[in-house]
Amino acid sequence: MTAREIILKKRNGQSLTANEINFFIHAYLRGEIADYQMSALLMAIYFQGMSFDETITLTRIMRDSGEVVDFSHLPGIKVDKHSTGGVGDKVSLILAPLVAAAGVSVPMISGRSLGHTGGTLDKLESIPGFKTLLPLSRFKKQVEEIGTCLIGQTEEICPADRRIYAMRDATATVQSIPLICGSILSKKLAEGSNALVLDVKVGNGAIFKDAETAEELATHLIRTATAFNLNTVALLTDMSQPLGVAAGNWVEVCESIDVLQGRGPEDTRKVTLALGAIMLQLAGKTQNLRSGMTQLGALLDDGTAWKKFLEIVRAQEGDTAFLEDPEKYPAPKHRVEVKAEGDGFIAAINAREIGRLSMLLGAGRKTVDDMVDYTAGMFIHKKIGDRVEKGEPLMTLQNSGQPPDQDFAQSVRNCFTITHQSATPPQLLRKLLSAQGVHSITEIM
Amino acid sequence: MTAREIILKKRNGQSLTANEINFFIHAYLRGEIADYQMSALLMAIYFQGMSFDETITLTRIMRDSGEVVDFSHLPGIKVDKHSTGGVGDKVSLILAPLVAAAGVSVPMISGRSLGHTGGTLDKLESIPGFKTLLPLSRFKKQVEEIGTCLIGQTEEICPADRRIYAMRDATATVQSIPLICGSILSKKLAEGSNALVLDVKVGNGAIFKDAETAEELATHLIRTATAFNLNTVALLTDMSQPLGVAAGNWVEVCESIDVLQGRGPEDTRKVTLALGAIMLQLAGKTQNLRSGMTQLGALLDDGTAWKKFLEIVRAQEGDTAFLEDPEKYPAPKHRVEVKAEGDGFIAAINAREIGRLSMLLGAGRKTVDDMVDYTAGMFIHKKIGDRVEKGEPLMTLQNSGQPPDQDFAQSVRNCFTITHQSATPPQLLRKLLSAQGVHSITEIM
Repeated sequence: MTAREIILKKRNGQSLTANEINFFIHAYLRGEIADYQMSALLMAIYFQGMSFDETITLTRIMRDSGEVVDFSHLPGIKVDKHSTGGVGDKVSLILAPLVAAAGVSVPMISGRSLGHTGGTLDKLESIPGFKTLLPLSRFKKQVEEIGTCLIGQTEEICPADRRIYAMRDATATVQSIPLICGSILSKKLAEGSNALVLDVKVGNGAIFKDAETAEELATHLIRTATAFNLNTVALLTDMSQPLGVAAGNWVEVCESIDVLQGRGPEDTRKVTLALGAIMLQLAGKTQNLRSGMTQLGALLDDGTAWKKFLEIVRAQEGDTAFLEDPEKYPAPKHRVEVKAEGDGFIAAINAREIGRLSMLLGAGRKTVDDMVDYTAGMFIHKKIGDRVEKGEPLMTLQNSGQPPDQDFAQSVRNCFTITHQSATPPQLLRKLLSAQGVHSITEIM
Repeated sequence: MTAREIILKKRNGQSLTANEINFFIHAYLRGEIADYQMSALLMAIYFQGMSFDETITLTRIMRDSGEVVDFSHLPGIKVDKHSTGGVGDKVSLILAPLVAAAGVSVPMISGRSLGHTGGTLDKLESIPGFKTLLPLSRFKKQVEEIGTCLIGQTEEICPADRRIYAMRDATATVQSIPLICGSILSKKLAEGSNALVLDVKVGNGAIFKDAETAEELATHLIRTATAFNLNTVALLTDMSQPLGVAAGNWVEVCESIDVLQGRGPEDTRKVTLALGAIMLQLAGKTQNLRSGMTQLGALLDDGTAWKKFLEIVRAQEGDTAFLEDPEKYPAPKHRVEVKAEGDGFIAAINAREIGRLSMLLGAGRKTVDDMVDYTAGMFIHKKIGDRVEKGEPLMTLQNSGQPPDQDFAQSVRNCFTITHQSATPPQLLRKLLSAQGVHSITEIM
C-alpha cells in the first residue's frame, strides 16, 4: 500500500477501504506522506466524492487522531451548534450563554476567520484579554462549572483535521461534502457533545450558494452524525445577505451585546432563538420549538443570558469593562460612509463579496498567518427589500490600517443591486432537517 | 491573482490565461506557491484538462523557465526521439549512435526509471564510468563533435518541468495529456532540436493502455509541437509485452550491444530502424522510410553504429572494456528461472506488472531517491504467440539484492496468460501520425 496507489484509486473513482484511509492519514501525521500528496488526494476526493461508508471512516479516523473528551459524568445532554459559515454570523457568541443560561451544557469548539467568512475565535479575541487557547482540562472544568466554554481547536483535538483543514482553503478543496462532514463532525464528536444543531447557510455568502447542495450537505451531515449516535438537526438559514447589521470582530461583539440585552437586529435574534430552541429540544428541555423560542426570548429580555455571557468572559480572562461600556474600546482610525448613487429598492446583496471586502479591510485573514485588525468592520444599513434614496448610506466601513479609498468604496457599493421595482426580503429560516426527514418552518415554529 | 483563485478556476473547468499560468509557475519556482498547491492544480488539470492554447502556454513557460540551447550554427536538422515509456525499451541506446552514424545530429536529453518504466539514464549509468550529468556546454560540444550526446535534464534545462515532474508520479497525475505534452515538449524545445520522432507506446505496459488515448496523446503532442515549429512525427508501437528479451539496466545494455553489432532480437531492431528512418526523413536524409530502414540496417550490420556507440561511451567517460567483453561485468548474485506450469500458447503478457516486478527486483525506483541495482533484470524467453511446454523457462530473473523467492517467481509466472488455442503476436508497428494525418504502416514501410 503506497500513498500513490491510494490517490490513484480515488482518482479513478473507486472507494477506499478503512485500511487505506487509516494508512494515508496516519502516515501523513507521521510525516511519511507529503503535504503535496494529501492535497492531491483532497482534490481527487473533491472530484470523485466519497461513499457514505468512506465518509464515516474518515470522520472516525480524524476524531481518533487526538483526544476524545468524555462528559458522560455530567448530567444531561450536551449540545453544540455549528454553522457552515457566513458573513455577519455572530450567533455563537449569543447562543452559547443563552442555552447555558437555560440549563443545557454547551461544549463549543470554534474556528477562525478564513477567506470571506468570519470566525468566532477572532470575534471573541477582540475582547481584551479573552483567551480561546485553553487546555482541554480547563475547557472541561468550565463546561462543568458554568455550563459552557468557547475555545479553539487545541493541539489535542483532531490533529488530522487541523492539518488537513489548514490546506483546504489554499488548495480550493473546501467545497467537498465528505471533507466538510469529516472536518465538522470529527471535532464535534471529539469535544464530547451528544447532540448537535447545524446552521447550514444558503445563498451567495454561504459555502454552497444553491439550496439543493446546501440541503445535500445537511442530509450528509445528519446521516454521518447518526452513524455515531450524535443526534443532529440542521436548520437551513438565509445567507443571501449578511446576518444582522455588523460584519467584523468587535462590531459583531457589540451587536451580540445588544441581542444579549434584549435589543439588536431582528434577524440575528430570530436565528439565534430558532437554533437555541432546537438545542433545548435536543436536550429534552422544551416540548416544542415555539415554546423553546419563547423561553429563550425571555432569558434575553430579562438579562439572564447577558449575565451568563459576562460570566463566560470573566472565566476566560476577558475584560468585561469593555462589554459593560463599549465606548471605552479603541476607536477605529478611519470611518467611511458608502452612499447610494440612485433611488430604488435593494433587490440583491453580494454577501460573499462583502465578506471578502471586510477581510481586505482588516477584519479577516487572506492566509492563516495574517493579523486581524479588531476595529475593522462594516455596518450594513440597507437590507434586501429596503427602500433607499440617493445619498442615503448603504454601509459604513471602519478600520485602523490602510484607509478604504474611493475604489474600495465603489467595490462595496457594487455589492448592492438596486432596482425600481420593490423587492421581497428573503425567507430567513428555510427548512429544518433531521434524521426523521425534512420539515417546513411554518410546520414547526 | 492568488494561487487559490487559479486552482479554483481550473477546478471549476475554466481555461487559465497565459498570465495566470505564468504567475503560478514562476511564483512556484520562487517558493511563493507551495508544493501542495501545485499538486492540487495538477490534479485539477488531470480532471478538467487544458485547452490547446493553455497547453501551448504551459509548454512555452516551462521551456523558458531555464536555458534554451541554440544549435542553429550547426548545419543540418537536429532530430531527437522521445518514447512515452515502456518495459524493455532500450531503443535510445541504439538509435542515438545509429542516426548520428548516418550523419544526423541527435541532441538527446533522457529521463530516469520511475514506477514500472525503465530509464535511459539508468541503463547508460550501468556502464562503469559513464557520465550522464554533464554541463550544457559539454553537451553542445559533444553534439557538434561526434553528432550526439546522451544526458539527463541538467539544472539549467526546464527547472519548472523538473520540479513538477518530480511530484507527478507520487500524486497519480502522470496520465494527463496536457501535462505530458508540456513536460516532453518543453525539454525537447530547450535542447535545441528542430524535429522530433515520438515513440508512443500502446498496450498494458504503456502510459495509456488503450489505442484511442495513445493516439489522442500523439495527436496533441504533434499539434502542440507544430505550434513551436518543431516538426514532429509519432509512431505508435506495441507495448502489450516487453520489447526485446531483456528488461533491466545492464541486461538492456547487452541487448543493445547485440543489436548494434547486427544481431539481437528482431522486434528491438525493427522498432529502432523504423524510428531511425523517420528521423532520417525528418532530417531530409532519405527519400522514403523503406530506403531509410535499409540504409540504417546496413550501418548496424557493418559495425559503423557500434563504433559510434563506443565513441559516445568514451566521450562520456564510460569504460568500453565492459562493452567489448560483457563477461567482465560483475555477475548478479542470484539467478532464478521461472518455468511454465502447463502447456499451451502465450496469449497475453502483463507488461506493466513485469515492469513493476523488475523495479522490485532492484532494476528501478519505487521513489526518486531509491538506489538501482545495475545487475538486476529479467530475460523474457517467451513472447505472445509462442508455444510453451510445461517446465520450459518463461523468464530468467537476476539481481544482487534480496533474492527473488517463490512468491515473487509466482507473481512473474502470473504475468503470462497461457491458453490452449494458438495466439497471434501483436502488430509491433501500429500507425504513423504526422501533422499531415494518420498513416497505416503498410502504406509507408
